[in-house]
Order: sequence, then structure tokens, then C-alpha cells
Amino acid sequence: MQAYFDNSATTKVFDSVRDIVVKTMTEDYANPSARHRKGMEAENYIRAARAVIAKSLKVQEKEILFTSGGSESNNMALIGTAMANKRAGNHIISSNIEHPSVYNPLGFLEEQGYKVTYLPVDHAGHIDLTQLEESIRPETILVSVMYVNNEVGTVEPVEEISRIIRRKNPNTLFHADAIQAYGKYEIRPKRQGIDLLSVSAHKLHGPKGVGFLYIDSRVKIKPLIYGGGQQQGLRSGTENVPGVAGMGAAVEEMFKDHPKKIDHLYELKEYAERKLSQLPGVTLNNPPGREGAPQIVSASFEGVKSEVLLHALEEKGIYVSSGSACSSNHPGLSGTLKGVGVRQELLDSTLRFSFGLFNTKEEIDYAAQQLEEILPVLRRFSRK
Amino acid sequence: MQAYFDNSATTKVFDSVRDIVVKTMTEDYANPSARHRKGMEAENYIRAARAVIAKSLKVQEKEILFTSGGSESNNMALIGTAMANKRAGNHIISSNIEHPSVYNPLGFLEEQGYKVTYLPVDHAGHIDLTQLEESIRPETILVSVMYVNNEVGTVEPVEEISRIIRRKNPNTLFHADAIQAYGKYEIRPKRQGIDLLSVSAHKLHGPKGVGFLYIDSRVKIKPLIYGGGQQQGLRSGTENVPGVAGMGAAVEEMFKDHPKKIDHLYELKEYAERKLSQLPGVTLNNPPGREGAPQIVSASFEGVKSEVLLHALEEKGIYVSSGSACSSNHPGLSGTLKGVGVRQELLDSTLRFSFGLFNTKEEIDYAAQQLEEILPVLRRFSRK
Repeated sequence: MQAYFDNSATTKVFDSVRDIVVKTMTEDYANPSARHRKGMEAENYIRAARAVIAKSLKVQEKEILFTSGGSESNNMALIGTAMANKRAGNHIISSNIEHPSVYNPLGFLEEQGYKVTYLPVDHAGHIDLTQLEESIRPETILVSVMYVNNEVGTVEPVEEISRIIRRKNPNTLFHADAIQAYGKYEIRPKRQGIDLLSVSAHKLHGPKGVGFLYIDSRVKIKPLIYGGGQQQGLRSGTENVPGVAGMGAAVEEMFKDHPKKIDHLYELKEYAERKLSQLPGVTLNNPPGREGAPQIVSASFEGVKSEVLLHALEEKGIYVSSGSACSSNHPGLSGTLKGVGVRQELLDSTLRFSFGLFNTKEEIDYAAQQLEEILPVLRRFSRK
Repeated sequence: MQAYFDNSATTKVFDSVRDIVVKTMTEDYANPSARHRKGMEAENYIRAARAVIAKSLKVQEKEILFTSGGSESNNMALIGTAMANKRAGNHIISSNIEHPSVYNPLGFLEEQGYKVTYLPVDHAGHIDLTQLEESIRPETILVSVMYVNNEVGTVEPVEEISRIIRRKNPNTLFHADAIQAYGKYEIRPKRQGIDLLSVSAHKLHGPKGVGFLYIDSRVKIKPLIYGGGQQQGLRSGTENVPGVAGMGAAVEEMFKDHPKKIDHLYELKEYAERKLSQLPGVTLNNPPGREGAPQIVSASFEGVKSEVLLHALEEKGIYVSSGSACSSNHPGLSGTLKGVGVRQELLDSTLRFSFGLFNTKEEIDYAAQQLEEILPVLRRFSRK
């Protein structure tokens, strides 16, 4: 049996995604900028995807900018707005549990002279709203907070954050990194006061190498990539038609019978929580059940190194992640796990189980059963 | 009959490309940064593509940086080296027939205080080497010249350019935009003195949304996109495994029996040149036959607007380009055509026929036959 529980790292594509990617690579393969009919056909795929995505957020179609993925979306949101709003101020607020694709562009901006305040989080992973309020100054141009944390699945209080921002400085923009949230939640940027929202397609059974950035039409932003002037000059380069069309298909399928899909994920999550809790020496770090995101369970295994357990599980065809798989091959110990108060000795004994729509309860039974056999053996060996 | 002659805008993918894209989206779909076996399998696709590409240029594997396409490659080459070599100088040299994805990042750099010299070209489209030599100063950090022009197929004298650079200022870097050249020519950056080389996969029957930048290991360069530290920290973001693997498959197939493939393209080109020259009132703007790139024929049609002819041809299933399809929906009149001395009254009467490996002589016969019927009709209507 195989059990792929690393869906927050990346997912298998839907069949509908595969089909449209193949069609646009082999039949309707023209350049959307071409003036002939085949070019228009290609452009129609882009338009259709834009319409589906805009509808999923209830925003305008022109507010959707296609990118090469979540990292580019986050970079563009941060660097693009910082550069465009330089005159308004040089202060940015974020948190200390952000993904590296937010954290590292902020580091770049600090080199360029911007000032960044990093808010701490409480033991549930929520950012400190009092400190947020105190940190907003007249020169604060941007607040960037993730919607759902990628390691433990904490959902940040985005509405409260935007309310505080509006009250303290209505000119401050609010960016939400929704890479783990989009497709799981009904996100309504206009109602929730979100000005910029980053999304990656391959986290929701869409293709890799494509994502989007929602940019409220009033936001001033500069491009990262200049050239032929595609996408209103904001992101040049021949549009990745198969990628964009594939993302459109994924979004369409994800939001079809959406509550049922999310119920399925929560069932898996809660079932996994029950099964893991029954094992000795296991602590769960994620907000339980519906208090957190539907796809993420973070579990610490006393007396076992996560790396060792990960490889023991892969031998059984079970694929999980130690910390976040998004952050290259040389991550330090996780900032998020420390942030939410995981005990020092468990930091390096933690695995993330992340679920996708293709997972089943049987796979969780299988994983629990394997863990029951593996854990005592590993613990015996690690006690010298 | 259909005849797709817009291969310099984009191409249909090879079957081998389609197959590997599907496989990596549906079976071997893991995140290459994941520590488990499925992650390693995904990473192996990246490694294999890197090896094939490095071999095609006879460079080191670590010198290949995967990007989201030609525009990102060009932006990174220009902005990345300008930012990283600020202390060495602020002067850049380019030409006035570059693609917008070179021209517009240079505009951005000018805003940032860099000085750019734009070299003129002669009537064959070659940049002025005397002016190049005179323009190189101690503070010149970069020369950026396209390898093959995308509108008329002129091949720039890259070896002479690099020799002049080495002689005048050995610290000046040389970037070649090879987006229309790679796959058509045997490029040897080490021997030819090229420090940076931009490539796009979808111009050679590979996928859209992926490309690479060759960066000589001694070159100092800054990232455009920060994050999880993938690709030695130079280009963060989950690697686009299907895209990169697809590009690897395209490169492998392109360079298999390479001379035969190029002969096929030249046969098509020369056949089209003959057929078009036989029509009344047609002037060819491209360097003839083997004096220019194998895939591009640029023809001006006296007394006919290119836009009108383009649409009349599309009615017959023949797809060509007016100017360069890469430059968005609002191009001005072409800088290249003016640069190579196309007469004012023909600038707006010019079409590009660009060939790919799937084209046949029969398609050219068909297009010539259709043109023979269409041209007199259009000319009659346009003479008021």
C-alpha cells in the first residue's frame, strides 16, 4: 500500500488538469499574443481561467495576475508594493512564522533600507494583535501575514488584522500569503479587507510552475519581470497557457461541491488525530479539528528523530514531511514549531502529515498500524 | 490544410515532452525538496534535465539555472548582474534591436541610475563592432546582445563581440539572449566567451513557462525571487518538475541527429524564400539561406497591410506573425525592421514566417498558392 501524506508540499494533479495541459501543449498551443485565430484560442484559455479564479474570490478578472508560482507571488506582493510605495513609507510588518518566500524577500528589502517588524505568535500560532496595533505607524506601507500556516495549519485572524490596519492606518496595504489556504477556505478579499493574496496551483491538485497574485485594483505595484508587456505590463513573458489553464481546471474542480471536499479533508484530519493520539509518546501540535486548517496534522514523536522516522515510513510507502518541505534542503530547526511552543526536545522529532483529496481513511489505518510497529523499534535503538 | 508558420512565437511540443509532463504530473509528482523517496525521484528528473542541457552547451551542471521562461532569464541576467556588480560600475551596453524582455529591464535599470548605450545595427542587422569597442569603458559591467534576432533571423557575431570585450575590459560580462538561437546552433559558451545565456523551452518544442539561464560559475549575480533557497538560493520556488523535465526531453530530442534537423529547417526556409520571391511585389528582409537563422523568413508585401494579410491567411488555415508576436498586444512599429533598413512604406506590410520541425514543403506550397490568389485581391481593394 502507498500513502502520500505530503500534500502541503505538493499534490498529484486532477485528471481534468492533466487533460487540459495536454490539449494546450499539443493542439491549442499557440502564443496568446499572436494576432491570428490560434492565438485567440490560446488567449481564451487564459481568459477562462481568469474568470474561474476571479469568481472563486468574488473579485474582478483584471485583479488576477498569473505568476510562475507561490514564491513569485509572494516576492511580487512584497517587493513590488514596497518599491511602488516608497514615497509613502519604508515600514513593513510581518510575523516570525512566515514561509521563507515571505521571510527572505523581507530580508532583501531590509538590505534596501526598509524596516521590518516581525510579530510573535501565541501557542496556538496566532499573531499578537495588540502588538500588531502598536506596530502600525504612519510610514507602515504593508502588513504581510500568512492565512494558514504551512507547518501546523493555524488560521490567522485575517478579518481582525485588516480591521486593525484600517483603523490605525487606512493607507497600509494587507497581503495574505494564502498558499495553504486557497481552495480550503472561502476567501473574499473585498469583504475581508485583503489587498493582495498569493496562491500556488500545485497545492490544490493543479500544475507546478504556476500561481497567481490577487491585486486589488487600487494597489500600486511594480513588476518583477519586464518585457513584452503581457498582463497589462505587470508580468511579462509568454503566458504559460497549459499551466494557467491547468490551474483554472484545478480551481473549478476544487470549488465544485466544495463543502463536501472540505468535510472529506476534516474527516481524514480528525481520524488521523484520533489514530495518532492513541500511540504512546505522541503529541499533536496542530490546532485540533476544525480549529485549524483541514489538511495539516503536526505530530511530535518522543524519543525518535523525525529524519529517521520519515525514512522508516518511506520504506513502507508512507510519505510525510519533516518540518516544511518547501524550504530547500538545508532548513534550520523550524521557526513555527518553536513559535507555537513545541518543547525543545521535540523540535527535531516532529512530522507533518498533510492530506489531499485523493487520500483515504484506509491509508491512515495503514500508517497508524505501521507506526505502531516502527515506533517501539526505533525508540529501543535510539536509547543508548 | 493547416500551416502553422509561427514557430518563433511558440511551438507544438514533441510527443516525448507530452509524455514526461504527464508522468511527472500524475505519477512522479512529489516535491523535489521533500526528503522521502518520492521527493528524490522528482529531484532525479531535475538532475537528468540539468545534465542534458549542460551537455548540450558543454558547461557544468551547476551553471544551469532553471527559470519560468525566456523573459525571466533575460531579466535575471540583466537586473541580477547589474545589482550584484554595482560597485564595479554602472554602465551597460546593448543594441537597438533587442527583444522587449531585454529592452524593458534595461529601462528599469536606467531608472535605478544605470547608464545604457544602445548600439545601432547595419542593414544586415549586425551590431556596429567599432561602436561597441568605443563604447566599452572601465565602468562597463555588462554587454547584452541577442544571438539570433527574432524578427529577421540575423545572427550576431558573438565570438567577435566577446573578443572585443575581453580586449577592452576583461571584467565586463557578456550576456547573449539565445532564445531564438538555442536548439538551432551549437552554442559553446566557454569557447565563445559568453558569460550568461538565456533560453526558453517553448521555442524548441518544449513546454511553456520554463526556460533556463546559463551563468558562468565566476559570475556574481543576485536572485530576482527569494524564498526556500532552491537552486543554490539563486531561484527559489518549488521546482517546476514537469516543465523542467519537459524542457530536458525537448533538448534531448532537438540535439538528436541535430544537423539533419537543421538541414530540414534550412530546406523549408530556402524553399519558402524561392516561393515568396516568385510572387510580385514581395521583398525578403531576412539574411538569405544559411546567412541567417534556419527558421525565420521575413517578407514585405507591397501595397498590403500586414494585419489584413495575416487575417486573410488565417482564413485559409495559415498562421504567421506580423512583427514579433512576443511583444504583447500593443507593439509599435518594429524597431528591428527599421534598424535593418526596411523602407518606411513596407514597415507595416511585413509578415514573419517561422518554421518548426513539424512543418513540411507541402505546407509552403499551399501557402504560396493561397498568397498568389489573395494578394491581387487585397491590393485591388487597398488601392482607392
